[in-house]
This record gives sequence, C-alpha cells and structure tokens, in this order.
Amino acid sequence: MTWTLQQVAEHNNPSSCWVIINNQVYDVSDFLSEHPGGSSIILKYAGRDATLAYEPIHPKDALEKNLPPSKHLGPVDSASASALKAEKDNRKRTKDEFRVDKALKERPPLHRILSLADMENVARQVLSYKAISYYSSAADDEITMDENARAFSRFFFNARVMKPVSKIDISTTILGFPSSIPIFVSGAALAKLGHPLGEANITKGAANSNIIQMVSSNASLSYEEIAQAASPSQTLFFQLYKHENDAIAIKRIREVERLGYKAIWLTVDAIVPGNRERDIKSPWILEEQEKPPKYYTEGEGSADQANVFGTAGALIVNDDRDMTWERTIPWLRSVTKLPIVIKGIQCVEDAVLAAKAGVDGILISNHGGRQLEYSMPPLEVLYKLRRQHPEVFDKMEVYIDGGIRRGTDILKALCLGAKAVGMGRPFLYAQSAYGEIGVTKMVDILKRELLTAMALLGASSVNTLTPDMVERVDWQPIVRSRL
Amino acid sequence: MTWTLQQVAEHNNPSSCWVIINNQVYDVSDFLSEHPGGSSIILKYAGRDATLAYEPIHPKDALEKNLPPSKHLGPVDSASASALKAEKDNRKRTKDEFRVDKALKERPPLHRILSLADMENVARQVLSYKAISYYSSAADDEITMDENARAFSRFFFNARVMKPVSKIDISTTILGFPSSIPIFVSGAALAKLGHPLGEANITKGAANSNIIQMVSSNASLSYEEIAQAASPSQTLFFQLYKHENDAIAIKRIREVERLGYKAIWLTVDAIVPGNRERDIKSPWILEEQEKPPKYYTEGEGSADQANVFGTAGALIVNDDRDMTWERTIPWLRSVTKLPIVIKGIQCVEDAVLAAKAGVDGILISNHGGRQLEYSMPPLEVLYKLRRQHPEVFDKMEVYIDGGIRRGTDILKALCLGAKAVGMGRPFLYAQSAYGEIGVTKMVDILKRELLTAMALLGASSVNTLTPDMVERVDWQPIVRSRL
Amino acid sequence: MTWTLQQVAEHNNPSSCWVIINNQVYDVSDFLSEHPGGSSIILKYAGRDATLAYEPIHPKDALEKNLPPSKHLGPVDSASASALKAEKDNRKRTKDEFRVDKALKERPPLHRILSLADMENVARQVLSYKAISYYSSAADDEITMDENARAFSRFFFNARVMKPVSKIDISTTILGFPSSIPIFVSGAALAKLGHPLGEANITKGAANSNIIQMVSSNASLSYEEIAQAASPSQTLFFQLYKHENDAIAIKRIREVERLGYKAIWLTVDAIVPGNRERDIKSPWILEEQEKPPKYYTEGEGSADQANVFGTAGALIVNDDRDMTWERTIPWLRSVTKLPIVIKGIQCVEDAVLAAKAGVDGILISNHGGRQLEYSMPPLEVLYKLRRQHPEVFDKMEVYIDGGIRRGTDILKALCLGAKAVGMGRPFLYAQSAYGEIGVTKMVDILKRELLTAMALLGASSVNTLTPDMVERVDWQPIVRSRL
Amino acid sequence: MTWTLQQVAEHNNPSSCWVIINNQVYDVSDFLSEHPGGSSIILKYAGRDATLAYEPIHPKDALEKNLPPSKHLGPVDSASASALKAEKDNRKRTKDEFRVDKALKERPPLHRILSLADMENVARQVLSYKAISYYSSAADDEITMDENARAFSRFFFNARVMKPVSKIDISTTILGFPSSIPIFVSGAALAKLGHPLGEANITKGAANSNIIQMVSSNASLSYEEIAQAASPSQTLFFQLYKHENDAIAIKRIREVERLGYKAIWLTVDAIVPGNRERDIKSPWILEEQEKPPKYYTEGEGSADQANVFGTAGALIVNDDRDMTWERTIPWLRSVTKLPIVIKGIQCVEDAVLAAKAGVDGILISNHGGRQLEYSMPPLEVLYKLRRQHPEVFDKMEVYIDGGIRRGTDILKALCLGAKAVGMGRPFLYAQSAYGEIGVTKMVDILKRELLTAMALLGASSVNTLTPDMVERVDWQPIVRSRL
Repeated sequence: MTWTLQQVAEHNNPSSCWVIINNQVYDVSDFLSEHPGGSSIILKYAGRDATLAYEPIHPKDALEKNLPPSKHLGPVDSASASALKAEKDNRKRTKDEFRVDKALKERPPLHRILSLADMENVARQVLSYKAISYYSSAADDEITMDENARAFSRFFFNARVMKPVSKIDISTTILGFPSSIPIFVSGAALAKLGHPLGEANITKGAANSNIIQMVSSNASLSYEEIAQAASPSQTLFFQLYKHENDAIAIKRIREVERLGYKAIWLTVDAIVPGNRERDIKSPWILEEQEKPPKYYTEGEGSADQANVFGTAGALIVNDDRDMTWERTIPWLRSVTKLPIVIKGIQCVEDAVLAAKAGVDGILISNHGGRQLEYSMPPLEVLYKLRRQHPEVFDKMEVYIDGGIRRGTDILKALCLGAKAVGMGRPFLYAQSAYGEIGVTKMVDILKRELLTAMALLGASSVNTLTPDMVERVDWQPIVRSRL
Repeated sequence: MTWTLQQVAEHNNPSSCWVIINNQVYDVSDFLSEHPGGSSIILKYAGRDATLAYEPIHPKDALEKNLPPSKHLGPVDSASASALKAEKDNRKRTKDEFRVDKALKERPPLHRILSLADMENVARQVLSYKAISYYSSAADDEITMDENARAFSRFFFNARVMKPVSKIDISTTILGFPSSIPIFVSGAALAKLGHPLGEANITKGAANSNIIQMVSSNASLSYEEIAQAASPSQTLFFQLYKHENDAIAIKRIREVERLGYKAIWLTVDAIVPGNRERDIKSPWILEEQEKPPKYYTEGEGSADQANVFGTAGALIVNDDRDMTWERTIPWLRSVTKLPIVIKGIQCVEDAVLAAKAGVDGILISNHGGRQLEYSMPPLEVLYKLRRQHPEVFDKMEVYIDGGIRRGTDILKALCLGAKAVGMGRPFLYAQSAYGEIGVTKMVDILKRELLTAMALLGASSVNTLTPDMVERVDWQPIVRSRL
Repeated sequence: MTWTLQQVAEHNNPSSCWVIINNQVYDVSDFLSEHPGGSSIILKYAGRDATLAYEPIHPKDALEKNLPPSKHLGPVDSASASALKAEKDNRKRTKDEFRVDKALKERPPLHRILSLADMENVARQVLSYKAISYYSSAADDEITMDENARAFSRFFFNARVMKPVSKIDISTTILGFPSSIPIFVSGAALAKLGHPLGEANITKGAANSNIIQMVSSNASLSYEEIAQAASPSQTLFFQLYKHENDAIAIKRIREVERLGYKAIWLTVDAIVPGNRERDIKSPWILEEQEKPPKYYTEGEGSADQANVFGTAGALIVNDDRDMTWERTIPWLRSVTKLPIVIKGIQCVEDAVLAAKAGVDGILISNHGGRQLEYSMPPLEVLYKLRRQHPEVFDKMEVYIDGGIRRGTDILKALCLGAKAVGMGRPFLYAQSAYGEIGVTKMVDILKRELLTAMALLGASSVNTLTPDMVERVDWQPIVRSRL
Repeated sequence: MTWTLQQVAEHNNPSSCWVIINNQVYDVSDFLSEHPGGSSIILKYAGRDATLAYEPIHPKDALEKNLPPSKHLGPVDSASASALKAEKDNRKRTKDEFRVDKALKERPPLHRILSLADMENVARQVLSYKAISYYSSAADDEITMDENARAFSRFFFNARVMKPVSKIDISTTILGFPSSIPIFVSGAALAKLGHPLGEANITKGAANSNIIQMVSSNASLSYEEIAQAASPSQTLFFQLYKHENDAIAIKRIREVERLGYKAIWLTVDAIVPGNRERDIKSPWILEEQEKPPKYYTEGEGSADQANVFGTAGALIVNDDRDMTWERTIPWLRSVTKLPIVIKGIQCVEDAVLAAKAGVDGILISNHGGRQLEYSMPPLEVLYKLRRQHPEVFDKMEVYIDGGIRRGTDILKALCLGAKAVGMGRPFLYAQSAYGEIGVTKMVDILKRELLTAMALLGASSVNTLTPDMVERVDWQPIVRSRL
C-alpha cells in the first residue's frame, strides 16, 4: 500500500501525526510524548516530509528501534516521491548553505594542515551554523571549556637533555587493548551533522591510525553501522548513557556486546542536560539570516517556545539520575563481563571512590565543559590526584579528556599519570573538514608532535615519564591566536 | 481656587518658588533647603511644570509626606491644563527618546531570553540613558562592581557523581519566611526610571515566583503602593536608611510595620553617597547629544554647578552617620519587634560583631560596588568568614549580594554558607526590559540554572551543600562576552 | 650699545656663538661645553633668536646665574627688535600648535571635571606634543610607571561599619608643617612647558588648598619667583639635586634657605638620567608631522645626533654620583638646619639605613617610573617596610609617591603607615589644563574622595587608620578606561 | 668543458638530477637522499638554475664539502650564462620583493634607533617574508618564546641608593676571554637570509664592540669565511651540532680548532627539529600573495608535500640523538682541548649533572623557544638553580639566553648569578636592518642601558651584583607596545 501526499497531509495534528522520512510514512502519534527531543519539533513536520531534519541527527535504525512495526505505514506513491524529490531539488537554499558550499570548495589541501588548530579552522568554515553551534557549544558562558585548555598552559616541562632518544616508543595499551599512541576517541555525538558519512569517518580513521574509538550512545549512526565500518581487529568501546529503566539499559549493553564492543564507559557527568546557549540559540540566528528583523508584540511567540535543552539536551532525557556507587557499579558488574570505566569523574574524592568500587578505569572529564560550568579542569584534578592519592594509579587506569590539542598536552597528562587521553571535538572537526582522511591526518599530526616533544623532553617511551618532568607554574601564560 | 500659568510663572525664584506637578500647584519655597536632591534642581523648574522630571524618581506620596497642606495651592485652571498637555504632546522628543522607542519595538520575544545576560542586554537597549547610567553606575572606576562578579569566577566546583538527584529541592526559608529558591530582591531604588509601573513589577513578579522582595527606602513607588501591589500572603522586607533623627526613623519603621513588612534590613554601607561618575555625567552627555559642542570660557558655567552626588547621592543626605554597635542595635531592638538584618557588612570582623550584637542576619554586601571603591568582594568575605569563624553561621543567617548572575553563582555562595543571596540590578533590568513577566522569567531562568547545577554537583537539596564542594583556585579565568 | 641681526648672525659657530633671547644678545661661546643640555641644541640657534626654545624650559634667572656679566652683550637695535617681532608674529604655526589652540577652546567647564582622570584627559588635549611627551614619559617601556599605579589595585579595604563618621578630620602635618590633606606636591620640573605661568600656578593653587609644595631643582621658574608667588604663611619644600661640587650645592642650599624654603628633600634616585624614549623621540615625531617622510641614505644624519637623554637628562648632568650614607648625610646636616628628607628610597634595606642615618623622613619613590625600569612599586615597598620594620615609622616620617590618582589610593597608603603622599604629574596636568584654578580643583576633588572613602571605611581621622584596614589580595583586578 | 642550458635541462629527474649554481653545473643525483633539506626542494630545480634558492641559506663551501669533485661538471657556456643573467635581470619581482625594497629606502637614520625594539621594528620591515618567518618563528604556538621574555617582567629591582657609581665597570670575561659587556652572540643561523653579507656583519660588529661571537654550526657563511672576517685578536666560539657519526663530528671540531675558534658549545636541545609552523607556512603565504586563491580537489597537491620541518629542521637532520652524560662529555674531552660548554640546559637537575660532568660552563637555554614548547623559561631555571644549588656557580660558568632585550634584562640575569647572557635573534635583526653598523649600534644601546641601570641600582661593577638586588614578584606586569 502506498500513500499520497494529500493523505499524509491530513494527519497533521497531535491526535494523528504522520511524517514522511525517506519516502516512508510513519504514524508517530503515540510516540510524540516519548520523543526525547520533545513533541514540538515533530509536530512542526506533522503531515509532511521530515527527512532533512531527521537524517543528520538520527541513526538509521532509530525509527525501527522506537516504533512498533504497525506504525510503519509504508511508502508514498511514486508521484508523491517524485514531487518530494522535486521539492527537495528546488528548495531555496539558505545563506548558510551557500556559505558552506563555498567553504568546502576553498578548503586548503590536506598537507597544509599542520596542527589541530588548522584543522578546526577549516571545520569552522565548512560546518553548517547548526553543526558548529552544537559541536563548539559548552555550558553557560563556556568558561569551563576554555579553562580545560588553559590549564595545560600552566604546566611547563623540566626538559632533560643527554638522554638517548633515537628510538622512541609512543605505543601503549588501554584496558589491555593496544593503541599506537596514548589517545582515544572520546564519545562525541552526531557526527553526521558535520559530514554525511558521520561516525564511520572516525571509525575508519581510527583503524588507519591504530587507535581506539569510544562510540557515543548518541551517535548519528547506529552501533551496528559503526561496528560494520570497523576493520576486523579494531577495538571499539561503548559510551553508555544508562537508561533509568535497568531493563532498557541491559538491552543496550547486550546489543553492543553482541556487536563486539570491548568496554563500557559509563557516563556519569551528564545525567541532566547542560545549558548550552550557543546551541539553543542557533535556529534563531539562522532564522534572522534569512529574514529581516521582526517587531514582536508582548506575549507573541509563546507557541514557538524555546527548547532550553538544545540539540544535546534531547539526547539524555531518560538517563538514570539516581545512580550510586553502592548500587550501580555492582549491578553493572553483574550484567556484563566487559571492563567498566567511569566517564566523568571531576574531583579527587570520587576518583578514590571509583578505585574502591573496583572499576577498571576512570576518565577524569567534565564533558568538555558542556555540563557543569566551573567544574574543575581535568588536568588540575589529575594533578591533585597524583599528589594526594598516587596509589589510585596502581589500582586502575586513569584517563583524562578536555582541552587537549597538542602533543605537549598529551605529554603533560602522561607525565602526571594518565594512561591515555581522550579527545572529542577534534575528531568531529577533523571528520567534518576532510572526512576519514582528516581523522587519519589528525592522528598523524599528534604522533609527530608527541614524538618531537618526547625526544626534546629526553624520554624514549611512555613508561619513563614521571611527574617531576612537568611543573605547575604560578603564572598564567598568554595564549594568542597566531599566523 | 485655580491658577493660571502666568500666575505660577511669577514665582520663579528662591524667595518664592512654585512648581506644577500633574496640574497641581505647590509652593516649595520653604522646602528648597530641605530637598535631599538640593535646591538647584528644583529652581530649574521654578514657576513651571516639573512633572516630567518629578515623576520617574519620586513616589506618589512624596509631596504629601514632605509639604504641609498649606503649601498645596490647588490645581491650574483648565486652559492652563490644556496648554500644559499640548506642550507635553508637542514636546520635541530627544534623540535618546527616539532610540528607546525603537529599541522597545525591537525587543526579542521573551522566550528567547536564556540568561540574565540576555535580559540585561535587552534592558541596556530599552533604558533611557539617564536610567542606565543610574542603574549601572558604580563608585569611582567601577572596579569593585566588576570584582564582585569576577570573584565568583575564582571558585570552581568539586562536582560529585553517582548521587541520587532525580528529585531536587531548592526551596529554603529566609528569616523563617519561605522562598522557592534561595534568592531575594535586594533593595534597589528608582524602578520607575526603567518602567512606568516601577517597583510593582518586581513585587508582582516576586509573587509569581514565590520569592521575597526587600523594598528600598528609596523606591519610586511609596511603601504603601508596593504593599498594595503584593499578594495577600507575600513577604516583603524593608531596607531602612536610618534618618539621623531617631524620631523620623521610628516614624518610618511604624509605617512599614503597619503596612505588613516583615523585617528591617538596616543599611550601613551607604551613610554618605558613593562617587558614581557615570550617573553624575549622564545629563551632560544627553545635552551633548542634542546640541553641537560648545566653546566655554574660563569661569563660565559656575551657576550650572555639578551635582557631585548624582541621582543616588540625593537620596541619603540625612542618613545617620553616627550609628554604632553599642547604641544603634539596642535602640532598634527597642523600637520594633521585627527581625533585624544588617545590610552592608564588608569584613570578617564586623560579621563577628554583628553576631555578638544579636541581630538576626547579615547581608555581606558592598552595595553592588556603588559605595566604597575597593571594598572586598562579598564572596571573598564570605569565604574568609566561613574559614575563620564558622560559628557565626550558627548564630544568625548570612546572606551576600553583588555580582550574582548565574545559578552557579548562587550555588557557590550556598556551598560557602550563605542562607540566600540578594540581587539588585538584575531585577531592575528584568522589569525594565519586560515589566512583571520579565521578573518572573528571570527567576525561572535562575531556578532552571540552579536545578541543573545542583544535579550536576550531586546535591539534592540546599541543606546538603558543603564548603568542600567549591574550591578557590589560584588562577583567574577569562570571562568573555559570547554569542 | 645695540646690535643688528646681521652682526649677531656672524657669530654662528662654536668658536663664536651668540644668541638672542628676548631681544638681548648673549655670547655663549665659552658656555657651550657647560650647557647641561649639550652644545648642539644651542648651536642650532647660533647667530639667531632662541627665545621660543629657551623660555618654556628655563627660569628667568638662568642666564644671569650661568653667564658672567661680560657675556651679556646688550640689546638688539629697535629695527632688529621689530624684525624679530614680525618674524615671530608671522611665523608659520605648526600642526601641533593648531591642535593645541583648538583644544584649549574646547575645554569642558571646570565643574565638569570629576576626577583626576578627567583632568589628565583635558591636559592631554591641550598640551603640546613636546610637553605631554616630557610629562608623561617614563623609563624604557614605561612598565614601572604603570606598575606604580597597578600596585594600588591589589589592595582592598576591610571596610568597617557602625563607626561614628559625621565629623572627619583629614588634616595632618608634614615635618611639623600643617597640611589640609595628607598630600603634597612632589617635585615636578618644567611647568612652563604646560602653561605660561608655570610653577606659580601650583604655588598659588597649593596656597588656596593649604597644602605644601616641594619645588623642583629643575623648576622652569626660579626659586625666587616661586617664593614670591607664595602667600606669606605658605610652606615650600625644596627638592635638592646635589651638585657634584659641594660648594655649588651649598650655594644652592643657602639660596633656598634665604628664600624661606622649609626643608631639603635630597633626591637620590636620579643621579643619572633615565631612559625616557617617548621624550627623546618627540622632536622627530613633530618633524614628521610637518614634512613628508624622507628617504635616508646610510650614514646620513650623523650631525643631527640623537640626544639620548631627552629633556630630562639634560637637567641632572652634574649631579653627585658618589653620595654615601656615611659622608653625604652628615655633611648635609652640617651645612643646614633645615629638616632633611631622602627622596627616592626604593627598598626596605635603604629605608632602614635612612632611619639609622637620622634623617627626618623618607619619600619612597622611584621617580614616577622615570628612572630605573622595574624599580619595585613604592606601595609594595611601603607594605613590606610596615610588616618587616614597623619601628622605622616611629623614627621618622615615611611618604610615598607614584601612581596615586584617587582618594582611595591616598587612604591605602595612609593605612599602611605613610604620613602623607606626594603627587607629581597630576599637578602638572591640572595646571596645564586650567592654570591655578585647575590645581585648586584637583585638591578639592581629592579631599571629597578622601572624605567619602574615610566615611565608608569607618575612620574619622587619619590617626585612626591601621594596616588591617587594607588587605593585599592575590589576584589582579582589571582596571579599564570607562565612560 | 661547458654546458648548454638544453643539456642541463635533460637531467631533470631523480635518476639524473643536475642543477646550475652561479653558472656552474653540478650532478646532485647521488646527493639527493643525503640532502638535509630533503630531495623535493632540490628536484624543484632539477635541470635548472638554483642559484637564487641556494645562496641565502648555504655557505660558499657547502657544495665543495658535500659533493665529490667528479660531480662538479664545470661551467655553462657563455651564451647560457648570458641567458641566465638575462632571465635573472628580467625576472618578475614578487610583491614581497617590492615591499622589501621600499622598506629599505624608508629606514630611519641609525641614530634614531633607541632600543632593540626599534631595531627589530626596522628589521621586520626590511626582511623578506621568508626571512622574518625563519627568524621570528618558534615552536608550536610560540608560547615559550613569549614566556622567555615575560619571565623577566616578573623580576623587580630592590634598587640601592647612596652608593658611589660615578665609575662603573661592565666588562667581564667569558671562559677567561675578555668581553666589554656581559653579553655574547648566541649561535643563530642563516644570517644571509637577512643581509647579503650574512654572519660577517655580526663578526665585524662584535669586533667593533669587543664582544664574543658564538658561530652557529648552521651559519650561512663557512666557518672559514667568518674566521677571515674576524679581527686578529677577536674571540670566536663554535656552536657544535654533534653529528651522529663521531668521525664526522671530530672532523668538524678539527676544522674549527684549526681556524682558531676558542671554545665548543655543544648544543643539546635541538637533536630533533622543533615544530615551527610560521616558518613552514611561509612559502604558502608567499604563493598566495602572488596568485588568486585556488580551489583544491581532495587529494590534490599530494606531490607538493609539506616539509614539516621548515628551514630549520633541515639543518639538524643528522644530529646525534643518543648523547649521554656518561659517554659524550668524556669523548668530547678526549678529542679537543678547547673549553666545553653545554648549550641547552633546561632544568636544575641537568645543571647539576653538567657540573658533575666537569664541563666549563652551561648555557641555560630553550633555543629561544624554537624547540620544546613549554620548556621552562631560562630565567626561571636560573632563579631556581641559584636558590637550590648555589654551589654550581662556583664550579663552572652559567649563562642564559632567551628573551633578553634590555639592559635591565641583562642586569637581572647577572644579579641571579649568570656570568653573561647570550642573544640570538636581536643580532640577526640588527644586521638585517643596518648591516655591521647595526650590530655595533645594538651593543652600544645595551651598554648605555646597562650602565644606566647599574648606576640606578647602586652597583659599580658586575662583581658586586647579588641575588637580593632582584625580587621575583607574585604578579604579572602588563607589557604593552608603546610609542
């Protein structure tokens, strides 16, 4: 059975709400209240084609997973499909789309990208306003995001000379799995916003580079698509946002176990959405680009309420907000044999508790400054943990993420005891700018930088790094944009 | 009996000075020397209509309270009233008024206001130059005002994870009176400068939001008008500027007791006017907007002397400058049964003395940086008090105000022992931008921000907050304007 | 006997060098090598009228003091005098002179000057480029000058409330001489550069304000002219640059004793000229304003060598560079009964030595940052002295200067033990902007600011100020230009 | 035998690669793989004239030293020589060359250069983009370079007064060799990039000024040319980049011994090339100046791969990366009697090891921030070394370089125990701006500044300087560009 656009158009209200996605008709009336992003965004497309809005932020299996088969009503008829295609082809392009197209053509050749800053600069040109707003935004005034990075500039090296460094080994293991350099992809969502191939770019780049990808619960490809993009021996970790319903959480764990993911990184710093104003504001700014400014009368616009959670908030609406050390860790141990890492430790006290709870590792992280504004910079927490509780590093692996952009940043974290460091936004920028080869290039840059820094620090392998090789200084360097 | 404009115009000098306000004629000759704002500002309108200058900064009952009935000479005749109305209607509008009108029309819809910074940005557009100068000005070089806010950026969170936070209670009590969130309106004067309904906007917004308003001694509505604007169960506090004459002070206390105000907040940090140059300079800048620049000859302009106290200075000209712990607190206890809070404590030593004096609370405050330049930021005083004299917090309630703009700011103060925090300018900005619904919206924003921050800090109620959840760092974050 | 311009013009070389000043002819051939400013600047005017260059930087008696009567050759004839006058009247005015004239006409009326910053802003408009370069310049990169002022911003008040302050006494004594406010004029040279009446403006303003003026050795009026400008009971101090020849130094001391100066402030921080590049460069910049840029060939311009000491350097070329505590202080005590103050103490150790040497006071000063770049800010030296050697304050009076611009600055220094504070540039700016009434106004501003600050600090007299009322903070406030 | 351009042009590929330099033909086919700068830069000129690219960065003897005589094929014929000359004369000049020519003509006369900042400003105008990129570049984000200089601004003087300073001696010795001021030329490569006479400008300026030059291993003149430029009694030191092949290293040492160099400064902080992005990027920026922006397609430009080492990296490609205290120092002692200094000590620990190893001196240096980003600023290392291991200063001489631009900088280092300070970039800038007389002028400026600073500090010779004369402060001054 097929449907005409007219038929679909009749179901344009909350009591009967149909949408078309990729020429398939779905009845989402009952699903409205369950949609993590809220019902209003769906109702905007009630009775209409929603493909363009749906695709960049949903994995292919999202509808299958969430809608019972009976709500999958079948395709539109071929005349309607043609009409939809014509509509899409003839759609007036926005100023932002024109800007992006031009920027894509003017990208410098890849070999001119010397640093992650260069890569990010390209990404900022080629990303849609919506995408850059989602990727770059952070909580409140974005101070924490900045401070994560600025913390690194307060640590200087006590470089050693006259040490043999003609051969340097930067490889390591993470939870026992080999990595060619002590970095990993920290779970970062919605890669399709930046590049049509989405997270698969990162997966393939990670394969090329022999590093490990932690896949976000909120990836815009399905966990299966990502697993399929991986090479046979490639290691994938899974970032778990635990659902408040244990059964649903277990189902998700079973799925990734089945797909061959190798560890569970339980995310604990994002149980409610952070306040990312840049992300929330992006649709209004786009709207203003297209139209002349409007005079509002008081009270007007009440229907078009703000989604004060933005793109991100929608993704974690059913998270478990009542996790505890006593209940959640033993429960998780009981349902999976995979190694468990706690992602989002933000203070020394909780690092100690995590070690007591017997997890396999912790990721000191404040979610890239996207959650609690004024959460202590991860590098500062690592520094304090190393001084106050060095024994913790013997009991489990400790990682950090947030603000790492240079080989020297990696090196500082390693000196202070980190087993490896995670990176989120940089991978999104790299895949947005150049796709898979952008990701490979990014890791190449970091390898070169890390090798150079280790040679100049007098260290021939990551095992020889010690805390006395870095020193926290009592002044704040000025970090300028250059070139 | 009625008066013609010609008759009034004859009384245009210090020995016989009449003014018209709302078509009523007043003989203010004897009052000139008592006017807190000085005689020269009145003499500018001698023999003329003074309504436009009078209204935005005086409560309705100001003349009744201060002039004996015999000086109320009766109305102008109807021809004069018509003439005054025509004059008002035909008045050439100033550039600043045109700017304000345009800005009011271009205000964004309220749901796009995500933060107090957004709210202030709108207010800065729609406020008259005179109003923004009065509201935003601070002492000398406005360093203290800035430092009040910057102090918050030196305190970071040691966020805790794996704590149950699905239910969070942010309600509290202040002096035993319930508040839906630990904030209150700190006394802020002259709301009518920003919005024709003045302080009543705040009163009604506070009622909507279930928070408490401390009413300024220098409100531009009378204490009675404000009390009438309040809902039946609403709590109002009174900010007392103590008159140097005890009898006058008692009269004022009796009035607010009668009107149902629930506590006396004795203001001790403003016994002389602060040096607010932005405010003092505003009339000159407005004048320059209207006219081409002028060449002055030496000595010229001596009659047009500067009012070196500005709008604010005028308001406190008869304050008691000889208050002491020994005399004033016992006296105040003897004249009222209301709870007493000292507003304007600026160092640890005085906090301790206040506790010894047995008051019910202190507000650590430097008057928003409007009084003593380089007064220690309140958050720093709170931090030191908590470390040096934790016992003080058991003896009385401790509040702070100055520089609070985010939920995380509130949370930091609460962690360090504050029972609640006061806010002044933000309420003036909110009511100036959108009236009553601006005030309600502002509190909604803060509630959302505080709830988010507490969830991410791992705290389910304000009672569980402790000093170790915040840490004073030894670096200074850069706080940028964004978006 | 009179001279024609032609006759004078023949003496235009080093072996016979005549110049005309105010229509009088002088033979300065033998004096060339003794001129503190070097011979080249004189030779520029050899055989010509030098009045315009001479007058703004020399006291009237300079030639009489330095040239034997036989070298005073008498007047030019009347035709020549007329020719010189015509030449002067018809002289093409420079762009800088036009700028200054316009700025003088556009000065705001005096009552609009609210702060010393306002006053300096006017002065910067009305001063010639040469004058502002000399006044505002400081050593090397002018860091010390800035840091002198920035030091004050690191000291905050622990303000006390509930103290009786209806009556505040800010008067004090300096070396026993009364002053209406604890400030004095610190020796600042060449006031005629900024205003034709020169130092007399300051003298008369000081009389109006009941403060004490320390007269610079390098004043552009003679010590006698300044003494004559003073009121009968007015106190003047003398800033001594000690000549390397004791006999000449004694002669100078005898002169000021005779003129009624009340104390000797021996300057010890300027025995060689500071490197004030802004001052040295000013003639080149003026030259470039008048002419199109020039192409130089290598080696060119060697005759027009740079005076690497600038205006200031010339003034101290014969100073005693071998003063010692052991020799100089006893010698000075032996030749005068006047009180002795050492001006230019820059560290705690020397403050202690000065107390041991039995002088009457020290002025902690680094010459306004005009001498040794990176000399410790005076306020920091005072702070350390108070903590490390409080006994020094009982043995002699301690003053500071450098960077004081506000009443709160004065107050901080007084709290830390200073008996009074000196100010240099601000007096030059005030007299440049408005002459004598500018000086009076400036002191009025400071009195109002100091009274306000003391009331708000809870201090009713300068004797009650204590070090615990200020606190050195561990962060650096941002001091912005405002308004 | 002579060659035609056509004959040469046939050898335009890796298997047979000829180039013409100064009308001589060379067969560099076998040398391609050994070229420190990589083969691709040579292949760009395969079969063509390479003179313009070759000359500014190679000493004259570079080809002789590296190519066997058989590969020197002889001259081009005279027609070809004429053609080459015509080609060179008619070559279209680039925008950058036009800019440089204009800047050279507009240079201010030398006597207007008051400071090293003035000198650098001229150099930045007259240098080619390639040259300024090479000279001014530093590692990664150039933070270390900046911090080297900023460190000096945290040290203030405790200036002493009343000390005899009419005679000041700033001369010293370095490794026993006299120097008129405690500075020396730190090895800085490729002077010909900035001036056609190259390092000889520095050599001759050093002779004029009686200071010592340390000659870079990578000088653009041969060691012999430099030795020939020196005056008979002039002291030259040699900066050794030790070749990984001991025999080659010995050969180089023998050469400089024979030429009369007086000490070996073994460079240990540059065993791998630093990441100088400004340098690496300069050819692309120049290319963009000449052409309109280009659209690249993915993968394009792979042949034109980036040289990620830049100009500098090429120079150290065969350095010994396995030097150790145990092996290298005894070996070096065994092969030469010259004094040995370790250049590139970056922490206290290695300074102590160097003293134990018995070398004659150390240069605390991070290579001007060109190698390891975030290497501790040399002044901070010196400061710590002086406090933690004062005995080291008795065992050997200690020098620092990096960030020194003023006489006060030199003085601070001397107070903290440095025997002398090295300067690199400033000498390159001085010789680029004005050739030999620029170098002489630069030293004159520093002498005047140092003399002034010592007089004002109360020190009459470098031997009387002590650590207590400087104080590390806990705030960070703002260093602005001025004038």
